[in-house]
Amino acid sequence: MSIFGESHGPCVGVLIDGCPAGLDLSIQEFATDLKRRQSGATGTTARREEDVPRIMSGLFNGRTTGAPVLVTLDNRDTDPSAYERIRMTPRPGHADFTAFRKYGGFNDFRGGGTFSGRLTAALVTAGVVAKKLLAPLRIEAYLLEAGGSADIDAALKRALDQGDSIGGLVECRVNGLPVGLGEPFFDSVESLLSHLIFSIPGIKGIEFGSGFACARMQGSAYNDEITAVNGQTRTNHAGGINGGITNGNELVLRLAVKPTSSIAMAQQTIDMGTGEQRELIIGGRHDTCIGLRVPVIVEAACAIVFADLMLLEQKIPRTLR
Amino acid sequence: MSIFGESHGPCVGVLIDGCPAGLDLSIQEFATDLKRRQSGATGTTARREEDVPRIMSGLFNGRTTGAPVLVTLDNRDTDPSAYERIRMTPRPGHADFTAFRKYGGFNDFRGGGTFSGRLTAALVTAGVVAKKLLAPLRIEAYLLEAGGSADIDAALKRALDQGDSIGGLVECRVNGLPVGLGEPFFDSVESLLSHLIFSIPGIKGIEFGSGFACARMQGSAYNDEITAVNGQTRTNHAGGINGGITNGNELVLRLAVKPTSSIAMAQQTIDMGTGEQRELIIGGRHDTCIGLRVPVIVEAACAIVFADLMLLEQKIPRTLR
Amino acid sequence: MSIFGESHGPCVGVLIDGCPAGLDLSIQEFATDLKRRQSGATGTTARREEDVPRIMSGLFNGRTTGAPVLVTLDNRDTDPSAYERIRMTPRPGHADFTAFRKYGGFNDFRGGGTFSGRLTAALVTAGVVAKKLLAPLRIEAYLLEAGGSADIDAALKRALDQGDSIGGLVECRVNGLPVGLGEPFFDSVESLLSHLIFSIPGIKGIEFGSGFACARMQGSAYNDEITAVNGQTRTNHAGGINGGITNGNELVLRLAVKPTSSIAMAQQTIDMGTGEQRELIIGGRHDTCIGLRVPVIVEAACAIVFADLMLLEQKIPRTLR
Amino acid sequence: MSIFGESHGPCVGVLIDGCPAGLDLSIQEFATDLKRRQSGATGTTARREEDVPRIMSGLFNGRTTGAPVLVTLDNRDTDPSAYERIRMTPRPGHADFTAFRKYGGFNDFRGGGTFSGRLTAALVTAGVVAKKLLAPLRIEAYLLEAGGSADIDAALKRALDQGDSIGGLVECRVNGLPVGLGEPFFDSVESLLSHLIFSIPGIKGIEFGSGFACARMQGSAYNDEITAVNGQTRTNHAGGINGGITNGNELVLRLAVKPTSSIAMAQQTIDMGTGEQRELIIGGRHDTCIGLRVPVIVEAACAIVFADLMLLEQKIPRTLR
Repeated sequence: MSIFGESHGPCVGVLIDGCPAGLDLSIQEFATDLKRRQSGATGTTARREEDVPRIMSGLFNGRTTGAPVLVTLDNRDTDPSAYERIRMTPRPGHADFTAFRKYGGFNDFRGGGTFSGRLTAALVTAGVVAKKLLAPLRIEAYLLEAGGSADIDAALKRALDQGDSIGGLVECRVNGLPVGLGEPFFDSVESLLSHLIFSIPGIKGIEFGSGFACARMQGSAYNDEITAVNGQTRTNHAGGINGGITNGNELVLRLAVKPTSSIAMAQQTIDMGTGEQRELIIGGRHDTCIGLRVPVIVEAACAIVFADLMLLEQKIPRTLR
Repeated sequence: MSIFGESHGPCVGVLIDGCPAGLDLSIQEFATDLKRRQSGATGTTARREEDVPRIMSGLFNGRTTGAPVLVTLDNRDTDPSAYERIRMTPRPGHADFTAFRKYGGFNDFRGGGTFSGRLTAALVTAGVVAKKLLAPLRIEAYLLEAGGSADIDAALKRALDQGDSIGGLVECRVNGLPVGLGEPFFDSVESLLSHLIFSIPGIKGIEFGSGFACARMQGSAYNDEITAVNGQTRTNHAGGINGGITNGNELVLRLAVKPTSSIAMAQQTIDMGTGEQRELIIGGRHDTCIGLRVPVIVEAACAIVFADLMLLEQKIPRTLR
Repeated sequence: MSIFGESHGPCVGVLIDGCPAGLDLSIQEFATDLKRRQSGATGTTARREEDVPRIMSGLFNGRTTGAPVLVTLDNRDTDPSAYERIRMTPRPGHADFTAFRKYGGFNDFRGGGTFSGRLTAALVTAGVVAKKLLAPLRIEAYLLEAGGSADIDAALKRALDQGDSIGGLVECRVNGLPVGLGEPFFDSVESLLSHLIFSIPGIKGIEFGSGFACARMQGSAYNDEITAVNGQTRTNHAGGINGGITNGNELVLRLAVKPTSSIAMAQQTIDMGTGEQRELIIGGRHDTCIGLRVPVIVEAACAIVFADLMLLEQKIPRTLR
Repeated sequence: MSIFGESHGPCVGVLIDGCPAGLDLSIQEFATDLKRRQSGATGTTARREEDVPRIMSGLFNGRTTGAPVLVTLDNRDTDPSAYERIRMTPRPGHADFTAFRKYGGFNDFRGGGTFSGRLTAALVTAGVVAKKLLAPLRIEAYLLEAGGSADIDAALKRALDQGDSIGGLVECRVNGLPVGLGEPFFDSVESLLSHLIFSIPGIKGIEFGSGFACARMQGSAYNDEITAVNGQTRTNHAGGINGGITNGNELVLRLAVKPTSSIAMAQQTIDMGTGEQRELIIGGRHDTCIGLRVPVIVEAACAIVFADLMLLEQKIPRTLR
């Protein structure tokens, strides 16, 4: 799977290689998840893309053909003019500085270019395909807290009033996984999931099962006693994974999402040309809490990883009937 | 890089492909890190391997040749007899159950087989090579807490007295990284580091910079203001990474290490043949806190990832002079 | 690099990952090679695509940004109605039968779908980018013979009169390569070139230097004596490669191109549904000799392989100035 | 799969990742193919390695465990002293010059180091495992001609008398392949086979089915008419492959093997230090025709490729019963 596009280029999209032949796909099926990603909750960016995917290859008579599937999402609601002034004054928290330096100044800086959260729409698109392959597996992610509070609406309103942004805590649960997915050294389930999930802009931590709490636990409390030959355990501190391999219990992971980098308040930065300090006020349209959008993207990432592993383990056939 | 071997097979080791030619390597240089992995602290397993690596290919006249480097570590202090009884009664917390099911019972179950922490000796070996390539970069990892306490010796003693085990919190800091390592979608620095680090048995969580704390923060406090054209920031909540790319500041990550799975106390499990409940008491030699051994392994993982990225970015030459 | 699209879908194209930042690219630069691929010589298919590439990502202000470059070529001159009848009666020489069986009948059979020579336009597009990266390296491929004759026009006319097709022999020469490209086991220069070149539909053989003639030679005649410290040899039977590594002499390879599979004459096949024998007459528009189109595609394949190797060997920087 | 070792280092060997669990393997099963590689015919090198493989990981109770399989072959009959003098005077036809330049002089030059044909013993070892996975598939390769003559013994004797070497023509046939192996763009069966086969030292050409002869043919003669729903064709000019995918007919390929580079006759070369011309006489033990050894190596390469493809197509299970 490859992702491409920029925030203010003609489109974003995804090229999916290795999708089994015979999967029925229609444009309508992408709408729910793409809409979830747009969120629309209090404090979500005012930028509105219609997000109607176009399937440019790999589909014939409504089914996948086994050839690479290219899906693009047009960018319509672009307003790059706002970005000219950030070219040399990198926004704190963003990839403006690192991208400028990594690509020798040739990077598309408008709206973060290829570093934009806009590319997660492509990931969500691929996730829809993966979820269909995995049905009836259930993958559910949701925002547990925003700004440290479980009263998420109140936290959003408070931050919005201050022109500030807040971080969030996202949890994801997967039910129905078979025993045996994942590879020891180096493709453990945790390795593969974290690899893909850390591609999502704004994720700064991941934990499985009891996660960081386990660092303070004793083995006698932590160990999940096995109660049945199907691998069922009394507790689930391991989050459904032993030795990097799924054990048939619910898979549980949690993610730390940083506060949206763009805020309405003044911030200090430097001018990359002159080296002088500058005060920067970021205009434009921004989310108060990107954690609101993350759940559906995390579901997509999980679905993509598990679809790959199910193919590898020959639990999804190469051609559907 | 590929890792191989089992806890009670003839050896463990690593095959390193793509190591630049001309790196001088001697057996002696592996001793310090291999010894750190063995730890020797209170409550460390009594199993003692001499751990003298053998370089079987890719070295000539004391320098790497550019051909694949194979390093093996013999297993001498093996005692597989102790493991016959665990064959059908999987140890809670271990990969016994998942390995049995994944490999249809053909897995080498002695001491966890290929899932054993013994294989991390191979990772440490590769890490020594990577560290030499990266010199004078400084990578330092250490145990911050064990069992939730910063008084680590006391925590170890308490757990040892109870026949129990404890988890730990490990921190790693890397200084001297250039700006620009890492690739957006899908090979961010966080993606690559977490992928490799979650190969290390017992890791259940990873966070970068402020990590999970950022989920409770506001953007105005979280954003690191840029104070110099080299990318230096006033704070370092991002842990040295923006948009998945190193920003030239100190790279900081922390890891949750679960309590050692093997404990001296009785635990419940099932007999995989009959399905009956069984009480299991694990004999043998085990660590009280594997978190003691993790730091040097994490340093190795970081070194391997950054050596790869430095080669990709052409900041390490393919042939040394 | 990934290729996508079908003969009669909306487009074909290529996604190029890892292209250095800062390469200037304009649509006009693709015209010459795309036109060469269309050939236009006697007996070339009457299908005419305008072949104006669209760069959908990875370009900003006329230069590559370092992000993935997506290039698409619209399909306009499609006429899929002609293909409904071949659905169950596979055309001899084509991939109709193998695609039907591999993909359980879900493949897009119109014009060969993803097996169509149309996809080589995408390869040529990628080749233009690779050639620019390699400049001033010279890569030249040409048709040596068609139907066994060096008088190619006469051979074409004869075959066209008979409603038949003919094969061809293509040679490619690359001048200006540095010493040291290619990896022993398993990525020799021959391995990488043949891997990519056998993706081109219709190639049935490849040889380097003296190639098949060397099977009849003696070592004393075959061995290329070295005459200078830069690696120059008196003869070039090895075709510029020793041990899978470029030796600084001219790289020479030759390819056998089979006759176009589609011919105007009646052929026997079977009905895949009923198993009955069928006589098949293929209508539509076809080339007399696909060997006419192959040279520019082979140049593209060579350029792509050598651009990759030059990046790996750090002889092309990751960011151009 | 990764290959390692050098001609005069401690060992050569192979690390096989992804081998299904449950395959029974014994040391004895490697003997036949390893012996075939040694050949022993007139004019084969006098170097004699016992070639008893050691399985260092991935085997337990006589069966593969699903973990990586490491197999090593000790080098015993080494005589590196003979090679000191070739260090600066590269042998024509060998990789001495390219290796010296590629690796900045750090390469192990003794006997060609990692470029030695000795490494093909490792490939043959991996091939034995792959053949077992593929049984009862039949893969047979043989030398068709040596020095242009089908009377191979006479040709060998003649060359041996002259202190010269000769090339050879090898053919390989695979029977029993299912329809549908191989991937269009970029992993056609021809792509994958040629990639691996060009890793074998001395191969300078490959052709499938009618191969180079097809360049002189007409489509009406070349096209293989399909005569049955299982894909059986009247002729087999395509060599069992259409569109890069196996079509269920016999797979046929032929290889050009160059004359052994080492000959007893004097040859011209240069001194890489001084740039002066030198006359070189290569002592030591060498084959008259490496084509004698190639068949079993080619069988191994084919077996490895097809075992991979059968796993990908889910026609070999991940765990054997």
